[in-house]
Amino acid sequence: MKLVVVGGVAAGASTAARARRLDESAEIVVFERGHHVSFANCGLPYHVGEVIADRSRLLLQTPESLRETLDIDVRIATEVISIDRKKKTVTVRECDTKKEYTESYDKLALCMGAEAMKLPMPGVDLPGVHVLRRIGDMDQIKAQLDAALLAQKAGKRGVVRAVVVGAGYIGLEMAENLHHRGVKVDVVELSDQILPPVDHEIAAPVEQHLTARGITLHLSTAAAAFHTLSDSDGADRVKVELNSGVNIAADLVILAAGVRPSVELAKAAGIELGSRGGIKVDTHMRTNDPDVYAAGDGVETLHPVLPGSYLNPLAGPANREARVAAENICGRDTEYKSTQGTSIVKVFDMVAGGTGATARQLDASGVEYRVIHIHPSGHAGYYPGTAMMHIKVLFSPTDGRVLGAQACGFDGVDKRLDLFAMAIRAGLTVYDLEEQELAYAPPFGSAKDPINMAGFVAANTLRGDLTLWYSQEFPAGIAGARLIDVRTPEEYELWHIPGAENVPLGTFRDAFADWDRAQPVRLYCAVGFRSYLAQRILVQNGFTDVATLSGGSTTFKHVHD
Amino acid sequence: MKLVVVGGVAAGASTAARARRLDESAEIVVFERGHHVSFANCGLPYHVGEVIADRSRLLLQTPESLRETLDIDVRIATEVISIDRKKKTVTVRECDTKKEYTESYDKLALCMGAEAMKLPMPGVDLPGVHVLRRIGDMDQIKAQLDAALLAQKAGKRGVVRAVVVGAGYIGLEMAENLHHRGVKVDVVELSDQILPPVDHEIAAPVEQHLTARGITLHLSTAAAAFHTLSDSDGADRVKVELNSGVNIAADLVILAAGVRPSVELAKAAGIELGSRGGIKVDTHMRTNDPDVYAAGDGVETLHPVLPGSYLNPLAGPANREARVAAENICGRDTEYKSTQGTSIVKVFDMVAGGTGATARQLDASGVEYRVIHIHPSGHAGYYPGTAMMHIKVLFSPTDGRVLGAQACGFDGVDKRLDLFAMAIRAGLTVYDLEEQELAYAPPFGSAKDPINMAGFVAANTLRGDLTLWYSQEFPAGIAGARLIDVRTPEEYELWHIPGAENVPLGTFRDAFADWDRAQPVRLYCAVGFRSYLAQRILVQNGFTDVATLSGGSTTFKHVHD
Ligand SMILES: Cc1cc2nc3c(=O)[nH]c(=O)nc-3n(C[C@H](O)[C@H](O)[C@H](O)COP(=O)(O)OP(=O)(O)OC[C@H]3O[C@@H](n4cnc5c(N)ncnc54)[C@H](O)[C@@H]3O)c2cc1C
Ligand SMILES: Cc1cc2nc3c(=O)[nH]c(=O)nc-3n(C[C@H](O)[C@H](O)[C@H](O)COP(=O)(O)OP(=O)(O)OC[C@H]3O[C@@H](n4cnc5c(N)ncnc54)[C@H](O)[C@@H]3O)c2cc1C
Ligand SMILES: CC(C)(COP(=O)(O)OP(=O)(O)OC[C@H]1O[C@@H](n2cnc3c(N)ncnc32)[C@H](O)[C@@H]1OP(=O)(O)O)[C@@H](O)C(=O)NCCC(=O)NCCS
Ligand SMILES: CC(C)(COP(=O)(O)OP(=O)(O)OC[C@H]1O[C@@H](n2cnc3c(N)ncnc32)[C@H](O)[C@@H]1OP(=O)(O)O)[C@@H](O)C(=O)NCCC(=O)NCCS
Repeated sequence: MKLVVVGGVAAGASTAARARRLDESAEIVVFERGHHVSFANCGLPYHVGEVIADRSRLLLQTPESLRETLDIDVRIATEVISIDRKKKTVTVRECDTKKEYTESYDKLALCMGAEAMKLPMPGVDLPGVHVLRRIGDMDQIKAQLDAALLAQKAGKRGVVRAVVVGAGYIGLEMAENLHHRGVKVDVVELSDQILPPVDHEIAAPVEQHLTARGITLHLSTAAAAFHTLSDSDGADRVKVELNSGVNIAADLVILAAGVRPSVELAKAAGIELGSRGGIKVDTHMRTNDPDVYAAGDGVETLHPVLPGSYLNPLAGPANREARVAAENICGRDTEYKSTQGTSIVKVFDMVAGGTGATARQLDASGVEYRVIHIHPSGHAGYYPGTAMMHIKVLFSPTDGRVLGAQACGFDGVDKRLDLFAMAIRAGLTVYDLEEQELAYAPPFGSAKDPINMAGFVAANTLRGDLTLWYSQEFPAGIAGARLIDVRTPEEYELWHIPGAENVPLGTFRDAFADWDRAQPVRLYCAVGFRSYLAQRILVQNGFTDVATLSGGSTTFKHVHD
Repeated sequence: MKLVVVGGVAAGASTAARARRLDESAEIVVFERGHHVSFANCGLPYHVGEVIADRSRLLLQTPESLRETLDIDVRIATEVISIDRKKKTVTVRECDTKKEYTESYDKLALCMGAEAMKLPMPGVDLPGVHVLRRIGDMDQIKAQLDAALLAQKAGKRGVVRAVVVGAGYIGLEMAENLHHRGVKVDVVELSDQILPPVDHEIAAPVEQHLTARGITLHLSTAAAAFHTLSDSDGADRVKVELNSGVNIAADLVILAAGVRPSVELAKAAGIELGSRGGIKVDTHMRTNDPDVYAAGDGVETLHPVLPGSYLNPLAGPANREARVAAENICGRDTEYKSTQGTSIVKVFDMVAGGTGATARQLDASGVEYRVIHIHPSGHAGYYPGTAMMHIKVLFSPTDGRVLGAQACGFDGVDKRLDLFAMAIRAGLTVYDLEEQELAYAPPFGSAKDPINMAGFVAANTLRGDLTLWYSQEFPAGIAGARLIDVRTPEEYELWHIPGAENVPLGTFRDAFADWDRAQPVRLYCAVGFRSYLAQRILVQNGFTDVATLSGGSTTFKHVHD
């Protein structure tokens, strides 16, 4: 069997590696048009930031190491320029010599990944405007940055400034790493929030954290054009023109506005694409040609919760899709079920991420769902070093299945995201979350872990023990209701929702005797626990329309501030 | 409905709290013989260590706060001394006034927890010999410790020494916290390893870490007796006599040799006990008396993997059992399925823990299982701040169901333990672990997470792609085999298994042509990956008996050192 793999990074190298282990006698050729295989794209921002000081640590394998350990024939700087599916050959061109030749295959694996989006915008090709996808991109950015910082240090010019276009995780990682080097950073984002994998109220605390760190966010704003600018201090800058009218003189512009799958080669060869422009594969990672497989950022996969297929340009899925592709290529029958889009980002001291569907995605797909918000601490509050995290869980109103979850905070966020991710993949319900027995000692969690708490609160809503109202309903949606803040007078004095009256939980049982039991009551406290207690009191005393604010004033502020 | 709860800590307070939320009109009385309710036992060692500086942070609730928010009638310093199940009354005695009275109940919840074991040993009641279970125990230990340290600081006496008897998690937490205060600590443990919830090879690195920190471990050793000792520097010490012949002059002795369920009250009232001496309950947390429920450290519960019922004195289960008990008390039909014994401990910079069954437990129960060992890093190796962790997974040889998992290491151990815990609770298989899509960015994980890796390796053994041999088999079990070290010559030179020949992976394909294909080959490398590659090469070249060392030389050293 002769396997030809196009692309030699996460999906390509993994396909080849797994195929070798399953078939020692196969001939395996990997073509990679770049000069590096099997490198850590995900580490690129951190080398710019000098958090990963040693560039060579990003190069996980070389053609030599893959030859030695796995007997794989890796040809770098060699682009596959066409596929002849009838003859089962590919034509390749050596990038340096321009020499072309053909190579036959029995099985072909398309692992061409994705390209960073270059918006068709005036000035997008200026030397100061960069994308970040490969080692070469990183080297350019770093060289330009190092030079600017050196000049600044020598007193030859002012503060180095950068504009990052796009506030997805790559954009934010670049913002942090540039800031870390001493650069003044502006982030421009078209949407009204950062971080597409999470909903607004989970993005909000991260936005505050970025701003507090001195990063300027331009939300609901587009970069309109880039112009060369010879600045007064002699530095070559780019004038970044925003559609808000703001102009920024930047030394560096990083375009982190998403990626699009590299499908031209496949398309030209008649490989079928999906509805989102990626390569269409079945659950065996097989394209419409039974001898052609595909894996990685270029393919569309099913979703465990949403109908249809999606692009999820993430390293974990790329690696596992590739492993499944290799198994099927080698004659095994293995399925890749779906990609749920689990993603995470470190933003200075904060961590944020999501898994499964967001509210926006569920809305767009017409899938019914319910939502809860909780704000537990990462570990026991009495043990030092923890902080409040913010969790949003989306689940099915009928059977309680977890559909999506998002979180941000400090310690222990990654752990809870992973647990939600496993829950979604295993098809667990919020009732199952109630029963999880997680590792508890004070430095690591709480006797009732945030996962349990999420289960309790969500299941309480399904059992009818807890009725929630949402910050988004304010003010119109609660008109005519009695809005009651059950926190202490001290908390109420500091801040309260306009129009709220204060009935502290401690005095609650003595307070409601003469209230109108038919008037809607909308309760809130800081996170939702005390108002839940108050709700239990009222509903068991004949009140008919009582609801607790999901996530309390904490979520309220994230929605309204 | 009138609910009487005996015991006011994790299980008792939680039962009462949940019952109030479900039944606002219930009369709820909690009797607690101690002076504190609802405190954080789990934080006690850390206040001794002054990591939790403020003692009041351990007191999560007071009788007043429970009255105010939940309308619960908490009576501290009041012991329930008998139960009349016919009359449905309890007799209580006020600890300070000795006044006795009876209180009727409709439903009774037994949440008496457990007591620290005091071994029947000469001198066990000496003032320097302590257990740690309640606030009062902690106060005594801390007072004695503070005084000794003060005297030492004033130059009035020598170094303060402590002996901790028992190397379970409470013992180790005490060892760490005493060490943190500047105490010289010896830990005495009857078993040949520390940490009962994990097997030997996972305990070993933690033992090394303790020793490296200057803590002396006495394994396979019993404390035989304690004697008063008026020491030359004037301090009142305890001479701790070990059965190894060693004597230690200690200022403090902490007995952390396990707990036994507090069942006397229940037993006297004819409440049935289980085979392990705990209160027997059904999955509704109901005892043999339909009006008497029990929850917490005093009860036996089913196990998700092992036959029979077990004592699992842990805070998470206590809290969740209590919640289930309360629901059934209030007329709902809720099941508590099982306790899997998920536990974790911080030991200085290390973290260790386990979930599900250990090999010892599976052996004892005659449950068939397979084992793998892996040593992934907590997050991407190229991102700073990570280290190798050690994971052992036990799974079913028939269907691949995860039966147990243990881990130790530094960053990200708690996360992986929790994921295994969820996998066990959800009945997932090692094939499911292969498919998990966990949150990956360099600071948090790897594109193939340790959970995936565990799934790959375990599933490979079930699919017959990987055959393992185990360090325990050495040397007898591999007699007659060719023992091959596939690491580099440099690694081999530094250390290798006695009798191994060195055939580096990079040269492997050129090496085996004239080997005897029928002779057993036993391969190893540092962790198991390279020897797996070598195994794939050999088996596909006609070798019939090839096996790879599970966990490589890393696990070998943990077993044999
Ligand atoms: C800066 C950055 C940070 C990231 N951080 C994360 C993260 O934290 N977490 C995460 O999950 N993911 C992250 N990712 C995404 C992750 O790197 C990708 O999902 C992963 O690399 C996809 O692998 P792939 O093999 O499908 O595609 P690619 O990595 O794009 O590799 C495809 C390769 O194919 C080659 N190729 C394309 N066409 C041809 C051709 N015709 N002939 C020969 N070669 C060809 C390309 O040169 C390329 O090297 C990050 C990506 C970047 C750029
Ligand atoms: C030092 C220490 C550290 C720990 N660390 C952890 C950890 O990190 N993780 C973990 O999961 N678990 C830990 N635990 C265990 C955890 O604290 C227990 O599992 C939990 O407290 C059990 O709760 P419980 O209510 O069943 O029992 P208990 O906490 O024992 O409470 C029972 C209460 O009942 C009272 N009582 C008994 N009999 C009577 C009577 N006749 N009348 C009136 N009152 C009575 C007792 O005074 C006691 O206060 C730790 C325990 C200790 C002591
Ligand atoms: C480097 C690369 C080629 C490695 O692929 P690989 O050979 O499959 O090896 P990995 O290190 O991923 O380990 C996985 C394999 O090791 C095996 N393994 C891991 N630990 C093992 C152990 N202790 N014992 C036995 N086998 C082990 C696994 O079973 C798996 O093999 P399988 O697929 O045959 O089951 C590929 O992952 C790659 O290119 N990565 C970098 C690019 C990238 O991912 N970029 C994006 C993220 S930054
Ligand atoms: C303090 C103690 C009485 C608290 O019990 P509790 O009232 O059940 O409250 P918790 O803080 O545990 O929170 C759980 C409840 O809050 C609800 N809740 C939590 N966050 C919420 C939110 N944001 N919105 C609405 N409800 C919320 C949960 O649904 C759950 O209620 P339910 O059981 O009715 O579903 C009890 O846990 C205790 O005594 N703990 C200390 C002792 C101990 O555990 N020691 C060992 C460990 S150190």
